[in-house]
Amino acid sequence: MAAAAAVEVTVVDFWCNEFGMRARLALREKRVPFEFVEEDLRVRERSDLVRRMNPVHRAIPILIHAGRPVCGSLNIVEYVDEVWSKTPRLLPADPLERANARFWADFVDQKVYDAQARFFTSRGEEKAAAMAELLGHLRRLEEVLRDRPFFGGDEFGFLDVALVPFSAMFYGYERHGGVDMEAECPVLLRWVRRCGERESVRDVLPSGQDMYAIHKEFYQIE
Amino acid sequence: MAAAAAVEVTVVDFWCNEFGMRARLALREKRVPFEFVEEDLRVRERSDLVRRMNPVHRAIPILIHAGRPVCGSLNIVEYVDEVWSKTPRLLPADPLERANARFWADFVDQKVYDAQARFFTSRGEEKAAAMAELLGHLRRLEEVLRDRPFFGGDEFGFLDVALVPFSAMFYGYERHGGVDMEAECPVLLRWVRRCGERESVRDVLPSGQDMYAIHKEFYQIE
Repeated sequence: MAAAAAVEVTVVDFWCNEFGMRARLALREKRVPFEFVEEDLRVRERSDLVRRMNPVHRAIPILIHAGRPVCGSLNIVEYVDEVWSKTPRLLPADPLERANARFWADFVDQKVYDAQARFFTSRGEEKAAAMAELLGHLRRLEEVLRDRPFFGGDEFGFLDVALVPFSAMFYGYERHGGVDMEAECPVLLRWVRRCGERESVRDVLPSGQDMYAIHKEFYQIE
Repeated sequence: MAAAAAVEVTVVDFWCNEFGMRARLALREKRVPFEFVEEDLRVRERSDLVRRMNPVHRAIPILIHAGRPVCGSLNIVEYVDEVWSKTPRLLPADPLERANARFWADFVDQKVYDAQARFFTSRGEEKAAAMAELLGHLRRLEEVLRDRPFFGGDEFGFLDVALVPFSAMFYGYERHGGVDMEAECPVLLRWVRRCGERESVRDVLPSGQDMYAIHKEFYQIE
């Protein structure tokens, strides 16, 4: 604990948390050094740090900046974008584009995450239906991306940060669902490769194999 | 439809929608004239306008500004705050205060709304537990407010806009749950009365009696 005062920015997260990766990606994009404190979600009880810093939800990720916590992954990304505002902005300047970025990030949180969770936790017809729904959501995001390099346009932005952690599960979709992601979502796959050229994404995203392995453990699936 | 082009700002909403009231409150606070197009949620099918303007969720509220839609109630409030930025800002300037306002608005959406819905839709012990939980959430919000006039500090702000529509249900809590809100949440009730002095709140919030009457219809309760 003695070292804590010397560290300006801390992220409390688990390495395979798709939501928490957003916080770490935003900081890497902004080139803000931070300490990563691992909270192992396989352990049922939350640590004292999490209980103290996020007493309302006892959830991760938590960004601790100069001792003060910011909770909620998209909230953290907005905070990082506002505090370190001299580096390229993640949210666009135009209010309508900002609103659209926030709308689709919420779509990822609600629709994509929900369909993914149902895909991994259900069986038979229900599992097939969840995968069909999930692919429908991803294709909708392809229509949002169109032929632009990034969701942020020419620049990697807020919605890119919000969505790209989910691409680390695509290997799991293929292995567990027998889908060919390249054939199903070619536009998105090109975007994933483009994102993968970024140092931030290479540093933060785990391999598909590692993601699938730990989610098999979480969801108790084969 | 001929008149639509002449109207700069439209809100599609139902009068008793706690989420949609936020959009209308934000516009009233900013003194932005708008047309209110009513979408009756008692009708099962959504209107063509809603299906066209929010094809993803087919939900209200929708803000239509110069023909372009913004969806999601908090998203709309942020958009209104950013577009009409010369009037007093709803979100504070400080990034940490902004993050806190967004965190607690999300708490209202997740926790307060969820407990309220369970309170109205459950029976017996489950109903009593939902009310206890709901009061716990409201008391947590009292700790956030403390002795300040508004959640925005001296000014009515983002979290005030997000929460005050729920106060129109307090009469329903009393009638349906037998609680005395004044005794349970005195700090919040003082805040509700302070908010009620604002023209925006008086214009947008329905009476507790009207809110309870329509929610009895929605939830099919006595």
